[in-house]
Amino acid sequence: MSAKTSAEVVIDGKVYTLSGYEGEEYLQKVAAYINNKFSEFDSIEEYRHITPAMKNTLIELNIADDYFKAKEQVIKLERDIENKDKEIYDLKHDLISNQIKTENAEASMKELEAENKELILNKSRLEAALEDKLLDKKPAGKPKANS
Amino acid sequence: MSAKTSAEVVIDGKVYTLSGYEGEEYLQKVAAYINNKFSEFDSIEEYRHITPAMKNTLIELNIADDYFKAKEQVIKLERDIENKDKEIYDLKHDLISNQIKTENAEASMKELEAENKELILNKSRLEAALEDKLLDKKPAGKPKANS
Repeated sequence: MSAKTSAEVVIDGKVYTLSGYEGEEYLQKVAAYINNKFSEFDSIEEYRHITPAMKNTLIELNIADDYFKAKEQVIKLERDIENKDKEIYDLKHDLISNQIKTENAEASMKELEAENKELILNKSRLEAALEDKLLDKKPAGKPKANS
Repeated sequence: MSAKTSAEVVIDGKVYTLSGYEGEEYLQKVAAYINNKFSEFDSIEEYRHITPAMKNTLIELNIADDYFKAKEQVIKLERDIENKDKEIYDLKHDLISNQIKTENAEASMKELEAENKELILNKSRLEAALEDKLLDKKPAGKPKANS
């Protein structure tokens, strides 16, 4: 983490020197957020005359409410991520088993293509042989003549 | 949302009647969280003698810090979800194109199997015909004899 820094911030009109491991930018952002809560409260007529203690408590409740709302959102998002991780796991599993299916299908395709080629060769050989036999009749007679 | 409720909560030893749309359980949880901050501060020697205003400001800063940390987590988780959604989209795309590949491979497999069956039938027909021709020589001579 970054080194310990200190920064002057103004909250509800009072200057505070904050020191911690957070950068000044962050501390100013947090102070601005709190000051915004004060001005929100000051803009509401019914809160304008409450005691500082009461106002502080209401502001603490208001900020704590923001915190709990954000925390609820974190819990919801973490649940969403868990579900998405499950979905990713299942999709990867389906993809792998599908890839194996494809590889097997392509392998037997190659085998069938080879068989096919062989059978076609065989066919033309047989057809040629048959043709010979059909034309072979006359010469087939020859040996008879020689006898 | 739920109906407007009101609840008595004790914060830093004072009783407050809160009314809002949040259930009492939630309001008590928020109050307990704030009281926990007060007791955390009271347990730190150097904070034991600061003014109530200063203590309230420090508690407001502390709660606001919890809020900003939770908000940062929300932003991080939302980024994670975006990335996981992209991954899911890509995986679904890959799965579909892979399924098409499998279907095509299986379709041409069927075609090849049919062709092979046909060729094997053809082969045995040709072999039978050739065999006939080979045994057929004598009868093949007959017409000559008749002329």
